[in-house]
Amino acid sequence: MAPNVPELYELHFAVPMAGATLSALNVSLDEHALTIILHRLRPKIIFVDSEFAHLVSKVIDNKNNTHLQENHYDHKPLLVAIHDVSPDHGTQCDLEVPEYEQTLATGESDFQAVSPADECDPISVNFTSGSTGTPKAVAYSHRAAYLNSLGLILQYDMGKSPAFLWTVDMFRCNGWCFTWAMAALGGINVCIRNVSAKIIFDSIQLHKVTHLCGNGKPTILNMIAEFPLVDHPLHSMVVGIIAGTFPTTPVLERVQELGFNIVQGYGMTEALGPALIRPWRSWQHHHHDNDEDNHDDHNLKYREGLHNITLEAADVKDPTTMQSIPRDGETLGEVMLRGNTLMAGYLGNPEATREAFSGGWFRTEDLAARHPDGDIEVIDRARDLIVLEEKMISTLQIEAVLLGHPKVAEAAVIAQNDLKEGKCSNAEEILKFCEEKLQKKAMVPKSVWFGDLPMNSTGEVQKSQLRKMANATGKQCP
Amino acid sequence: MAPNVPELYELHFAVPMAGATLSALNVSLDEHALTIILHRLRPKIIFVDSEFAHLVSKVIDNKNNTHLQENHYDHKPLLVAIHDVSPDHGTQCDLEVPEYEQTLATGESDFQAVSPADECDPISVNFTSGSTGTPKAVAYSHRAAYLNSLGLILQYDMGKSPAFLWTVDMFRCNGWCFTWAMAALGGINVCIRNVSAKIIFDSIQLHKVTHLCGNGKPTILNMIAEFPLVDHPLHSMVVGIIAGTFPTTPVLERVQELGFNIVQGYGMTEALGPALIRPWRSWQHHHHDNDEDNHDDHNLKYREGLHNITLEAADVKDPTTMQSIPRDGETLGEVMLRGNTLMAGYLGNPEATREAFSGGWFRTEDLAARHPDGDIEVIDRARDLIVLEEKMISTLQIEAVLLGHPKVAEAAVIAQNDLKEGKCSNAEEILKFCEEKLQKKAMVPKSVWFGDLPMNSTGEVQKSQLRKMANATGKQCP
Repeated sequence: MAPNVPELYELHFAVPMAGATLSALNVSLDEHALTIILHRLRPKIIFVDSEFAHLVSKVIDNKNNTHLQENHYDHKPLLVAIHDVSPDHGTQCDLEVPEYEQTLATGESDFQAVSPADECDPISVNFTSGSTGTPKAVAYSHRAAYLNSLGLILQYDMGKSPAFLWTVDMFRCNGWCFTWAMAALGGINVCIRNVSAKIIFDSIQLHKVTHLCGNGKPTILNMIAEFPLVDHPLHSMVVGIIAGTFPTTPVLERVQELGFNIVQGYGMTEALGPALIRPWRSWQHHHHDNDEDNHDDHNLKYREGLHNITLEAADVKDPTTMQSIPRDGETLGEVMLRGNTLMAGYLGNPEATREAFSGGWFRTEDLAARHPDGDIEVIDRARDLIVLEEKMISTLQIEAVLLGHPKVAEAAVIAQNDLKEGKCSNAEEILKFCEEKLQKKAMVPKSVWFGDLPMNSTGEVQKSQLRKMANATGKQCP
Repeated sequence: MAPNVPELYELHFAVPMAGATLSALNVSLDEHALTIILHRLRPKIIFVDSEFAHLVSKVIDNKNNTHLQENHYDHKPLLVAIHDVSPDHGTQCDLEVPEYEQTLATGESDFQAVSPADECDPISVNFTSGSTGTPKAVAYSHRAAYLNSLGLILQYDMGKSPAFLWTVDMFRCNGWCFTWAMAALGGINVCIRNVSAKIIFDSIQLHKVTHLCGNGKPTILNMIAEFPLVDHPLHSMVVGIIAGTFPTTPVLERVQELGFNIVQGYGMTEALGPALIRPWRSWQHHHHDNDEDNHDDHNLKYREGLHNITLEAADVKDPTTMQSIPRDGETLGEVMLRGNTLMAGYLGNPEATREAFSGGWFRTEDLAARHPDGDIEVIDRARDLIVLEEKMISTLQIEAVLLGHPKVAEAAVIAQNDLKEGKCSNAEEILKFCEEKLQKKAMVPKSVWFGDLPMNSTGEVQKSQLRKMANATGKQCP
């Protein structure tokens, strides 16, 4: 449990090489969530950054956590504290637990790295964000991890001495597998404890950063676009890989002007990170294409693209018939993935694993259309899609418009039961903006609320909770 | 059976996608060798370049070839002729057989590509050069082929719109797997029927070639170095991947001066092409290294390097104890390989397959030393190594010196039983040259012969035959 410190990077190799399985934990977990997760994992050793040592220690020592105390061990999990010595280090640990470097010093210098007996053995366990309930423990095999790492290198053209800035958490899909990919390349890892625009620009200058990733949200690009001190282009192009909601046009234009090449990735914990990718190389080639579908570069950038080369297949299918939907850019189906770079399964939950792979394809539960050139355009999560008078409305598209309003920092669109009263008066400005920007009238929100959005531990809006709140509140604007 | 024409490239995809197995045949095969190989393969369809159609037709129609006529088929293999329309095309075919493009036109436009039921199913069969006897049929799995293709891309940094000049025969390990690697990248394939310095330079200029390979011999570099018309550097660096004997210093310097970056590959048919590789990226980094072993760049270039990233492991072992030899740059052992990018086995020869993989490692039968930095330096084929007064003498090293003599085009060094007579008079010049250039006195040849070298179908000198000839001839210089 640590932010992106070098020790967490080292543990991505040391733990598997000791024949064990790694689980990098989200540092935003609270006591309750951490208790559930540690019960699931039953770790033998917990390496913890000093800042989070008290929390972990509290969970382990809690007498109510009988699973951790008795069920599985003769002893409690061993705690090893990582003391971050960087200038922006967190709280120092005053617990009396072994320290990371001192613990390493007691190791055997002639220890032989353990190779997996079977390449399908687990290398790591990562937890889903839990947007649909309790986080699921997702097991990665050595095979999926190495194949996906190679796939990333190929898709993002990372071959020539890359320097990777660690803006994506290593606890997310093992840093989208860039942990292992960077080692395969012998590249430079720039580990940072906290992400800020200043740190990003300083690191780019100091370490000649070539690649960085968004953290599942476009926030990092807003950060970069709004940083006031930068008015000179970068030393050379920096590739920024962004997943989740795509940035707004002004933000995209600003960061591109600054020298970033922004590419879209689409994936999930079960796919070890990005599964659908638009490689930046393609953009340069588009102007030579005669494909009529490719005229509008910007629209294209909103599409998720084609599947990672090491994934066997990605398709958009009718989930009942399992037939591919027509490539007309309109018909919706479910995004399904197949191949050796997907999870081995949910830890201790074979039923959920069977369900996730039913019909021989991993069911993403995301809705998408497919364009004539094969590009997959993800419209929305199946459970978030709004069906209004038989028309399907993408909440992601409306949110993208809302985020384009200068006064809006975060937005979430959900369906609410019919209102009997009119609009909130302070929502007028936003609604007018939506009317101007949204092409279909049916997409314009009927109501706007202001307030804190319910987030889960990875910062995703929990729309299911929002729906409950909205329908409980009824017609009231809070 | 075709030279590097686009049709042979297409067939690298069309044949597996039809659910069949491809065998690209060496165009130098004579009637006898072709008969043996076709008996082994029992092909259903033979695609043949017009130049070789008469030969193939003759073998098939030969009444003595009962295997091809009766044993396996109700009908003889179907012959489809490829008419090369390039300016330097070969002989046109006057046989009444179906033509390639016309045959394609009769296909089903909605044919669904067949995926392998198991990734370990064969994609192709390639024949060894047969330097130790009859060529062996080596089966490649889909899995080994795709992994090795990805490995090549990574090791040779081919990620950014490569243009590959087809100087390596596609019938050698499926063009060292560059056939599939180039498709994975969506790069440009420059197919050429014949290799000459003029064609190489013209292609580089016209198609902005980024990569080319030697054909298992350094001849291509001699060709480039000696081309008189070129005195300007290339538009940008061209990576040249050379296997087999390494070029001499003057040739290496000349081609580097012209703008080629020459890297060494070491491999064999059973390893799907290059298995040990020195990636060119390393060269730029060497100057920053403090490794004392790395001072002499040129010596380093003669080493075979480290294993391809998609190969699990390469080691130099004592073949009796299976222990790794010390990394002292002197002790000799056998190069052994292990991983998923090796052959599935010898077709129809499980015993030879077991032997080749005995002890869980693929036995290359090549002798090598290992340097402190891990680099593997291949000294010689085990069967070619000369042991003289308990000292081991590498025939490859002596040949490299001989090839540096301006009057020597080809050379082969073997051990001969003790001579009773002196040197041939016309050999004096060569022997003097060797005395000057070879560091150890024991390495200077005792005798020099002039004449045609016995070559196999891939242009390798058959030293075993040479040894027979030498010892039969006794003390006579022919």
